Amino acid sequence: MKIQALKGMRDLLPAEQSLRDYIQGKILETYRAAGFERISTPMLEDMENLDKSEGGDNLNLIFKVMKRGEKLTAALASGDPKELSDMGLRYDLTLPLSRYYAANRNELPNPFKVIQTDRVFRAERPQKGRLREFVQCDIDILGDSSPNAEVELIDVTTRALLNIGFTGFTVNINDRRILRGMLESMGFAPETLDSVCITFDKMDKIGAEGVRAELTEKQLPAEAINALSDFIAAGDVTLDAVAARCADPAIADDLKYVLSTASALAAGRYAVAYCPSLVRGQGYYTGMVFEVTCPQFAGAVAGGGRYDNMVGKFIGQQVPAVGFSIGFERVCGILLEQGYQIPGAKAKLALLYQKGDDFAAVLHQAEALREQYNVTVLAQGKKLGKQLGQLEAAGFVGAAFAGKEEIKLFSERN
Amino acid sequence: MKIQALKGMRDLLPAEQSLRDYIQGKILETYRAAGFERISTPMLEDMENLDKSEGGDNLNLIFKVMKRGEKLTAALASGDPKELSDMGLRYDLTLPLSRYYAANRNELPNPFKVIQTDRVFRAERPQKGRLREFVQCDIDILGDSSPNAEVELIDVTTRALLNIGFTGFTVNINDRRILRGMLESMGFAPETLDSVCITFDKMDKIGAEGVRAELTEKQLPAEAINALSDFIAAGDVTLDAVAARCADPAIADDLKYVLSTASALAAGRYAVAYCPSLVRGQGYYTGMVFEVTCPQFAGAVAGGGRYDNMVGKFIGQQVPAVGFSIGFERVCGILLEQGYQIPGAKAKLALLYQKGDDFAAVLHQAEALREQYNVTVLAQGKKLGKQLGQLEAAGFVGAAFAGKEEIKLFSERN
Repeated sequence: MKIQALKGMRDLLPAEQSLRDYIQGKILETYRAAGFERISTPMLEDMENLDKSEGGDNLNLIFKVMKRGEKLTAALASGDPKELSDMGLRYDLTLPLSRYYAANRNELPNPFKVIQTDRVFRAERPQKGRLREFVQCDIDILGDSSPNAEVELIDVTTRALLNIGFTGFTVNINDRRILRGMLESMGFAPETLDSVCITFDKMDKIGAEGVRAELTEKQLPAEAINALSDFIAAGDVTLDAVAARCADPAIADDLKYVLSTASALAAGRYAVAYCPSLVRGQGYYTGMVFEVTCPQFAGAVAGGGRYDNMVGKFIGQQVPAVGFSIGFERVCGILLEQGYQIPGAKAKLALLYQKGDDFAAVLHQAEALREQYNVTVLAQGKKLGKQLGQLEAAGFVGAAFAGKEEIKLFSERN
Repeated sequence: MKIQALKGMRDLLPAEQSLRDYIQGKILETYRAAGFERISTPMLEDMENLDKSEGGDNLNLIFKVMKRGEKLTAALASGDPKELSDMGLRYDLTLPLSRYYAANRNELPNPFKVIQTDRVFRAERPQKGRLREFVQCDIDILGDSSPNAEVELIDVTTRALLNIGFTGFTVNINDRRILRGMLESMGFAPETLDSVCITFDKMDKIGAEGVRAELTEKQLPAEAINALSDFIAAGDVTLDAVAARCADPAIADDLKYVLSTASALAAGRYAVAYCPSLVRGQGYYTGMVFEVTCPQFAGAVAGGGRYDNMVGKFIGQQVPAVGFSIGFERVCGILLEQGYQIPGAKAKLALLYQKGDDFAAVLHQAEALREQYNVTVLAQGKKLGKQLGQLEAAGFVGAAFAGKEEIKLFSERN
């Protein structure tokens, strides 16, 4: 039998699990204090729902569950591989939330401020840092179309990050519609915008000429390429400059409002920045998008945006929605790497008993010691000194002995 | 698109999720105080491992995940439906724990006292009370062959149940080997024992004659049937009477030790009883088995047993192991039904703001109020009286208003 966890999935050792539980607890505490309420949905969703969810590349990464019994027999007979599966493991928490809201909205408050934190699955090609099963930590506001919803999500998410000891980060904000409006006005066709954005996003690294070269290689229209690289070459890509090329001024006004209000709330504890090239991968985003980055780590530690059309797909009636997701694996990985210690954890004590001791009395003694310690009951080994050394190495602060009052603290031993 | 959760799986509304989080937290607190450490493993396991795991009927209930890409193409070409799947959703937490221990044992303490609490999946025929996705809450001790491991699991699990307000339960204990030894000595063939046990388990309801009738209907050997029904008819089925028909007296001694020690620990807070017909379904149990039942609810709220051969399948070397699992869904369902209230939860307050208010200042005010309340920031509605009524109905204790110090507590309103 195979003893390793499946590729791209992880067994968690006790120390890492404790850290994760602590961090998840702190994040939940911050979210709940802000009036957000936790829900949960099944790990599995209907395959048709997943297929129609505009999840971008993630739709190619769905783990599909096979039909069972007679339905499987019928599917096999049909010869169509698409028929073999009726449900799939969720690739994010946004599609399930939209379905959930549609199903349960009569019992939910309006606006609905909601927490989800649980596992999602993506059949990524296994490689370093790419997990196939990972935890997301999301908050969403459904039923509020005002940009205050964006501001509140940014406020609460950044407070959660600060509360777990995360510092030195930047909240990057953009509105997809402004960026896409500008690129379309320059002559790029709508279906090429994703590809253009990927190149545009590299402007800080490769400069106006680099952008021009890469877009030319992608065989995009020369006129549009010239317009974009001239625009970049002209100096700082400011929100005003981009907005001037976008049709609807209200979109830029809302973005400015979110940027200035979030900056005021940051009060210097973190940075808030307009990021003209930010788009986020998911196809379901309809307006503002945001991302938290740290200069010392590649990639984002949190990301989100507005997705006003997703719930409407289920109920035929638009429900404004915006969400912000903390990349839990990434955040935990960074904190672990930095040698994070859980503050205020109860000290571990071993209670050693010997063969023949009254075991019920031993367990009573353990329970009494638990006022002060987390107490592990263990049979005393033949070599006590060696056993005590192992316990100390495993993080125990000391040992007590069955039937005796004295506690031997390792810090007092000489 | 389909808005309901998949059959046999559940969307959890905020109130139920809060209760579950609270109960899980209390259970974890009890387990951790006793020196047990939480780990986690992936939801998916290798299909071959699952197939070979002696999970009894559960092996027929595995949700299988389809291969992807070229491997799927090859599997389809092979024409063998068994080839289509390479992994499956776990049906319990015991197989994954055994694999985990095999993979990570060099980094784990000995004995290893471990907590697992997470979702498992079984493709049950959907019906009331049968979930296809549900949470189990397990503790296990690996590396301890003494019956003190059984005693400790019973002590810690019952304390967890008591700590969440569960009372009036009985811990039923048996050793499979004693029961099977007696039945074999009476002339039942080993492969019929499961079926015999199911009938034997009904003796309290149907009596010796009922047992005789049902076993006769099952076409089992008349001589064995006579021996068993005479045995039941002779009076109370005591441990001594059963043990007298079993070859190894040490097995009965260990069972008596666990029964008497667990009774001493119970100190009248719950009952501990020998249950001669208890077997538990899983094929992997090798010795003692236990189950917690409540007279007012059908079925068990917790169950477990010793499984000394499971880890050995992975590493070719026996590792003694025993586990106890709380049926989390059942326990939460019962507590919800009883109108359980979460003690000491922070009160919910709404902070209402109006269009044009400085939203950064509103969020600052909310943060200050969070010293005392969980504070939800909401836009003030056009009809304030109606909005306040809705908030009160939703469990808020009162409302504050942007820029004002006063807090309107609903309990003070007249």
